[in-house]
Amino acid sequence: MIIKNKPDFGKIQKIDVLNLKSLEKRAQKVIGKGEFGYIEEGSDDEYTKQHNTTAFTEFHMVPRVLQDIEQPDQSTNFMGAKLESPLLAAPIAGNTLAHESGEIGLAKGTKEAGIMMAQSTFASKTIAETAAVSDGSPYMFQLYMPKDWDYCKYLLDEARQGGAQAIILTADSTLGGYREADIINQYHLKGKIANLDGYNTGKKGVGAGGLFAESMQKLNLDLINKLAEYSHLPIIIKGIQHPADADAAIKAGAAAIYVSNHGGRQLDGAPASIEVLPAIASVVNHRVPIIFDSGVQRGTHVLKALALGADLVGVGRPFSYGLALGGWKGVKAVADHLKMEINIAMQLTGCQTIADVKKIQINSNTHIFN
Amino acid sequence: MIIKNKPDFGKIQKIDVLNLKSLEKRAQKVIGKGEFGYIEEGSDDEYTKQHNTTAFTEFHMVPRVLQDIEQPDQSTNFMGAKLESPLLAAPIAGNTLAHESGEIGLAKGTKEAGIMMAQSTFASKTIAETAAVSDGSPYMFQLYMPKDWDYCKYLLDEARQGGAQAIILTADSTLGGYREADIINQYHLKGKIANLDGYNTGKKGVGAGGLFAESMQKLNLDLINKLAEYSHLPIIIKGIQHPADADAAIKAGAAAIYVSNHGGRQLDGAPASIEVLPAIASVVNHRVPIIFDSGVQRGTHVLKALALGADLVGVGRPFSYGLALGGWKGVKAVADHLKMEINIAMQLTGCQTIADVKKIQINSNTHIFN
Amino acid sequence: MIIKNKPDFGKIQKIDVLNLKSLEKRAQKVIGKGEFGYIEEGSDDEYTKQHNTTAFTEFHMVPRVLQDIEQPDQSTNFMGAKLESPLLAAPIAGNTLAHESGEIGLAKGTKEAGIMMAQSTFASKTIAETAAVSDGSPYMFQLYMPKDWDYCKYLLDEARQGGAQAIILTADSTLGGYREADIINQYHLKGKIANLDGYNTGKKGVGAGGLFAESMQKLNLDLINKLAEYSHLPIIIKGIQHPADADAAIKAGAAAIYVSNHGGRQLDGAPASIEVLPAIASVVNHRVPIIFDSGVQRGTHVLKALALGADLVGVGRPFSYGLALGGWKGVKAVADHLKMEINIAMQLTGCQTIADVKKIQINSNTHIFN
Amino acid sequence: MIIKNKPDFGKIQKIDVLNLKSLEKRAQKVIGKGEFGYIEEGSDDEYTKQHNTTAFTEFHMVPRVLQDIEQPDQSTNFMGAKLESPLLAAPIAGNTLAHESGEIGLAKGTKEAGIMMAQSTFASKTIAETAAVSDGSPYMFQLYMPKDWDYCKYLLDEARQGGAQAIILTADSTLGGYREADIINQYHLKGKIANLDGYNTGKKGVGAGGLFAESMQKLNLDLINKLAEYSHLPIIIKGIQHPADADAAIKAGAAAIYVSNHGGRQLDGAPASIEVLPAIASVVNHRVPIIFDSGVQRGTHVLKALALGADLVGVGRPFSYGLALGGWKGVKAVADHLKMEINIAMQLTGCQTIADVKKIQINSNTHIFN
Repeated sequence: MIIKNKPDFGKIQKIDVLNLKSLEKRAQKVIGKGEFGYIEEGSDDEYTKQHNTTAFTEFHMVPRVLQDIEQPDQSTNFMGAKLESPLLAAPIAGNTLAHESGEIGLAKGTKEAGIMMAQSTFASKTIAETAAVSDGSPYMFQLYMPKDWDYCKYLLDEARQGGAQAIILTADSTLGGYREADIINQYHLKGKIANLDGYNTGKKGVGAGGLFAESMQKLNLDLINKLAEYSHLPIIIKGIQHPADADAAIKAGAAAIYVSNHGGRQLDGAPASIEVLPAIASVVNHRVPIIFDSGVQRGTHVLKALALGADLVGVGRPFSYGLALGGWKGVKAVADHLKMEINIAMQLTGCQTIADVKKIQINSNTHIFN
Repeated sequence: MIIKNKPDFGKIQKIDVLNLKSLEKRAQKVIGKGEFGYIEEGSDDEYTKQHNTTAFTEFHMVPRVLQDIEQPDQSTNFMGAKLESPLLAAPIAGNTLAHESGEIGLAKGTKEAGIMMAQSTFASKTIAETAAVSDGSPYMFQLYMPKDWDYCKYLLDEARQGGAQAIILTADSTLGGYREADIINQYHLKGKIANLDGYNTGKKGVGAGGLFAESMQKLNLDLINKLAEYSHLPIIIKGIQHPADADAAIKAGAAAIYVSNHGGRQLDGAPASIEVLPAIASVVNHRVPIIFDSGVQRGTHVLKALALGADLVGVGRPFSYGLALGGWKGVKAVADHLKMEINIAMQLTGCQTIADVKKIQINSNTHIFN
Repeated sequence: MIIKNKPDFGKIQKIDVLNLKSLEKRAQKVIGKGEFGYIEEGSDDEYTKQHNTTAFTEFHMVPRVLQDIEQPDQSTNFMGAKLESPLLAAPIAGNTLAHESGEIGLAKGTKEAGIMMAQSTFASKTIAETAAVSDGSPYMFQLYMPKDWDYCKYLLDEARQGGAQAIILTADSTLGGYREADIINQYHLKGKIANLDGYNTGKKGVGAGGLFAESMQKLNLDLINKLAEYSHLPIIIKGIQHPADADAAIKAGAAAIYVSNHGGRQLDGAPASIEVLPAIASVVNHRVPIIFDSGVQRGTHVLKALALGADLVGVGRPFSYGLALGGWKGVKAVADHLKMEINIAMQLTGCQTIADVKKIQINSNTHIFN
Repeated sequence: MIIKNKPDFGKIQKIDVLNLKSLEKRAQKVIGKGEFGYIEEGSDDEYTKQHNTTAFTEFHMVPRVLQDIEQPDQSTNFMGAKLESPLLAAPIAGNTLAHESGEIGLAKGTKEAGIMMAQSTFASKTIAETAAVSDGSPYMFQLYMPKDWDYCKYLLDEARQGGAQAIILTADSTLGGYREADIINQYHLKGKIANLDGYNTGKKGVGAGGLFAESMQKLNLDLINKLAEYSHLPIIIKGIQHPADADAAIKAGAAAIYVSNHGGRQLDGAPASIEVLPAIASVVNHRVPIIFDSGVQRGTHVLKALALGADLVGVGRPFSYGLALGGWKGVKAVADHLKMEINIAMQLTGCQTIADVKKIQINSNTHIFN
C-alpha cells in the first residue's frame, strides 16, 4: 500500500517534561482507565516491572573528572541508521489507546528527535500509514508471528515496502503474562488493528484482544531463516534474557539480539533486564548488535545499558505517555528530555562519544547466571 | 467405617480469583475473627511467614524464547498418582472453621481440579466421610502422632481403608509455635474433631485445642518403620528443613520428604522454606520424592520449587480461603487459577512438561548451610 | 550494711505478656515522659539499637525433626550459679524510674523466676537492700568505676558482703552516648543514687546525672587485677564488641566477657551486638564464659546467642517495663514468657538441653571483621 | 582589594542543635522556597544524595574498651593549618541565599570554631570581604574555572592576597546535574556574584545562573600546573570519585585530592562518596592529603571517613542551615555540635588523637571497583 493523503496528527501541544516517571500520573488523567491500566501494568505482583528500574543502582557508574570533554556527541549508528541518540521508541501495541494519532504521531515525534522507531504488529495504524510519515527515517517493524503465513507475508511485504530496516520478532510473548489491571478493569484490548484490516482476511473487527489467538505460540529457531529469506530483511529477536538463547539465535541467523523482559509484563519474579545484560553481552561478544529495554527512566540508565553491552536502548511507556499528553510533540519532548539527561551523564562520566560510553567500567555484585 | 449417605457440600458458589493473595482479605469477611486469626497467623513476629513468600525473588528464573513450545502439559505423576498439576492441598486442621463442608468440600474441589489432597488428623470430617467423596482420587492422610497407640492404629486403619496413598507424619509440631493472634483473640481451636469422635475414646468433645495434649511430643526415627509396618503405607515426613534430617529420615525408611516450615507457624526467624530446599534436594539426590510447601502464592513459585528439587508443591491457606468463599467450587477455582499461572510460566520459561521444569537452572546468592 | 526491715515491694500485680516488644507501649503509659525516654532511647539515629534486634534474622537457625526430644530442660549453670534459664536481668540504672520498688522488685522477680540478676552502681536501692531480697539467689554487681578509690572499695565491700558472685565492670561508657530523647525532654537522670547515699561522701543528693562526672573515664586493663585483688571476686568486662578487646581482657585477668553494645545507647552506626559475637567467641575459645546482650526480644534470639557462643543472655529494657507494669510480678512474667518461648524454640530445634543449644550450627553472610 | 570597613554580620542568635539533620526542616522556614530548594536538592531521583548518608552503616566501626583514653584530642593539621577539628565548611555558592551575612558569616563562624573554611567562586561576598573576616584563619578558595583567563587570574590574585592556603578546583561540575526542585520552583540562582562584580568585566548583574555559561567545560589535567604556576598556591582537585582520576591528578601536580560527589547534586545513581573512598585512598597511598565530603551528618561519619583515608572532612548544607538560623553563631553551633559528637565517638572507639582514628580498622562488603 502507498499512502498519499496528508497525515492527521490530531491534537498536538508542546509539553514540559520534568522527568519520564512523572509523565505516568499526568497521562493517567487523559487516557481511559482501562487503556491506561493496559499500558501501565506489569504481570503478577509487578516485582520485575519495578525491579527493572530500581536494579540500575546495583550497577556502579562513577563520575570522572578532568577528561577534557565538552559538548558530548551522543549520535550513533545502529545497523546502518544514523541516529541523533542511541534511543529507540520500543514497539507498543495500539497507540491510539494513548492518542488519536497513534503510530503516525510516534513516527513523527521520533523522526523529529532523530531516534529509532519500531512499529508493532498490533499498531493502530497500518505500516503504510506510518511509513508515509516516517519517510526514510530510522524505522523497524515488530512482528508477532501470525499463525497464517499468508498474513505474515503480507506484513513482511508491507514492512519492506515501507522501508523498515529490520524485522523485530517478539519471542517472549507466545502467551501473555498475567496482568491483573486488565482483570480488575475488565479490559480487553480494543480498537482497530490496522494491519489486519489492510489484509483481506475477512476477520475485520476481530479486535486486538483476539489477536493473541491469531498469533503463533510454537516459535522456534528455524523461524529466523524463514522470515529472513522471505523478507530479505535482518531479523532481530526480542525478549532475550538468557545467554544461551542469545547464542542460539545468533547461530540461527539473528541479525541482532533484543534484550528485554517486555517491561515486566511477562514472567514476573524474573531478574531485572539490566541484571541479565552483562552475561548476554559476554556471550554475544560483538557478533551482532544488542538492543536493550525494560525499566529505562533516566539518562544514566541509558549510559549503564550501553556500558554493559547495548548498542541501542529502548523506552516504551514514557513515549506513550508523551504521545497522550502532546501528540507527536509530546513524543519529541520525551526524547529531547532523555537526550538532555544523556548529555549531562556523558559529560559527568567523561565521555565525548557513545564509543567512550561503551568503554565505561561498571561493576555489580549481582550474579544471575552463576 | 464406610459412608453411604450423600455428602452435603453446603453453600457453594463460583468465585473469581484475581490472585491467591487477594483471597485472604475476602475470606476474612466470611470467617469468624478467631477462626480467621487461627488460619492466617504465623508465629512470633511472622518474619518467616512473610519471608517464605518474598524469598522466591532471591531465586532467579529467567524467561526463555524460541523453545518450540505450545500448550504446556503440567500433568505429573506423584508416587503413582496421576495429577493434572503438581499441586497439593496441604493438610490444614479443622476446615469447618472456614466452611461448613470442611474436608469433604476440599476433597471434592481438589478431585474436580485433578490435584492431590491431604487430610489432617485434626480434620472436621472423618477419614471415611472424606474418602467417600474423594473416592479413588489422589489422597493422603496427615498424622499428628497420638500418644495412644490404639488411637493411632484406628487412624491408620481408617486411612488405608479410605484409600490413602500415603501417611504424612508431621514432625515439626511436637509443640505448637507461639502464635499471637490466638492470644489476642483468646481463641482456642474449637469444633468437632471428627476422627476422635469416631474412635471410642470416651474423650468426645475434647476439642481440637486439647488435641496437642493428646499428641506425642517425643518423636524419633524409629517411628517411621513402626508406622509403615502397621499401615503398609508409605510414610512421608513433613516439616523437614535441614538436609541432615532429610538424610536420616530416608535412611530410617521415609518414602518421601516433605519440606515445609508449617507456613511460618512454628519456628520464627528461620529461613524461608524455599531457601533450604536446594540443599535438601542435593542430599536427597532423587532417592525419594520431595513435597514442598510454605509461602507459595504464584505459578512462578511452583515452577521455582520444582526446579529446585520438589516433585509436588503444597498450598495451604489459599485453599481454606477458597473453601470459605465458595465451598468446593472455591477450592477448584483456586486450583484452576494456579494452573493457569503455571501454564503461563511454563510457556514463558520454555517448558513443555514438568520434566522440563525440573531442568530449569535457578541461581541464588542465598546460602543457609555454608 | 545489713538490712533487717521487711522490704516494701510497692504496688504489684500479675500481668499478661503478649511479647517483650509489646511491653514498651504499655509501660510508656505508666512511666514519666522523661524517664521513659531515658529508658527507651538509643544514641544518635538509633540505627544500632534497631539493628540489634533485626540482625538476628541474618543468622540462620533451622528447625529440626525426629530428634527424640520432649520437655526440654533450659536450666544451666553460670559461673557456679544454678539457673532455671540462661537469662540475666541486665544492669540498668535507677529502676525506681520505672517502679517504686526499683532493684528490690527486680531482685524479687528474678529470684522467683530462677534467673540471674545484675544490679547497677547507679541503682535506686543500696546493694544491701537488694541483697537482702536476693538473699543467696544468683546476683552480680555492675560497677561504673568511680574516680574515688575509697568509694570504689566501699562498693566492692558492699557487693561481696551482699553475696555478689561477680563484679561486672562496664567499660563501654566512659562517656555517655549522644541520646536525643533526653535533649528533647530536657531530662537529666534524677532520683536517689542509693549506693552513693550509703557512702559518706558528703555528696548526697548529687543526682544520677552528676554521677558520670564522678566516674572514671580513663579505664585500662590494669584495672581488672586491681579490682580482683581488692574484691576477691571474679571481674567481668562489659561492653566488649571487638575480639582483640576480649583477648586482652582475658589475658589481663577477666573472669568472663560480656558482649554488649549497651542496647544501642553508645556508639551508633556500630554493628549489631549479635553480629560481633561469633568472632569474639572464636577468640575467647572457651577460656572464660561469655555473657551476651543487646536487642534480645525473643526466645529464638536467646537460642541464637547461645549457639553463637554465649553462656548467659541478658535482657534489659523489657524487665524495666515489666517492673513498671506489675512490680516484681511483672519482672517474673517477662522471665516466664521468655522461658516459654525458649522452651518452644528448643523443642523445635531438637534441643533437650542448653548444651544441645550450644551445638546448633548457625550460618550467616555477615562479616564484620574481615 | 583590601577591606577596611567593619563587617556587618547581620542578625545573629545562639541556636540549639539537636543534630545536623534536624536543621533542614528548621531552616526551610526561614529561607525562601526557591533558595531552599536550590540548597537542599540533589540530582535526578536523589538516590546518590540519600545513599551518601545511609551508606555509612555499610562500614563497620566497632566500639573499643579499656583503651586508657580520656578527653580525646581532635585537633589536627591540614596542609600546614592548625585546626581544632578535622572539619571543613565545604564550598557552597551564594550563601546570602541562606543569610544576609553570606560568606563573611561563614568565615566568622568557622574561625570561632577553629575549623577550615572554603569560599566558592560563586560566593555572595568578595574574596577580600571574606578574607578580612577570616584574617589569617584557615581558609581556601574554591574555583569554578572561568572561560576568561584574565578573570581567572583576578580570582587567583585575590585569593592569594586574601591569604587562601590553597585553590580547590571543582572538576565535577563542568555541567550542572539535573536538579528537579529548581525546575519545579522555576528557580534560577539569583543574587550578587560578588567576585564577578569586583572584576571589571562589564557583565555586572549577570547573575549566578549565568555563571555556568561563563565557566569552562573542557577541563583537563594540564590545568593543574597552569593554575599552580600562576597562583603559587597548592591546587586541590575536587569531585574525585575514581581511583584513576586521583592518580592522574596527583601525577599532574595536584596538591591534594578532594573526594566528593557534590553532595549528590551531580551524577545520580552513582555510589555513595564514602563507598569510593577506600579504593581512592589506596591509590593515593599518602602521596597527598585527602579531603572527603558528601553525606556527612554525624560524628561517627567523620571518624569513618578519617579511618578510611580522609585527612579533612567537609560538611556542606548543615552549615548553610546553621547560617540561616543564627548567622555566624549558627555556623559555630553546627561545628561545636559535630565536635561534641566526634569527641564521644573518639572516646568510644578508643582514640586519643586523630592519628589513632586513622588507624581504626573498618570493614565493608561494598565493592565498587572490583
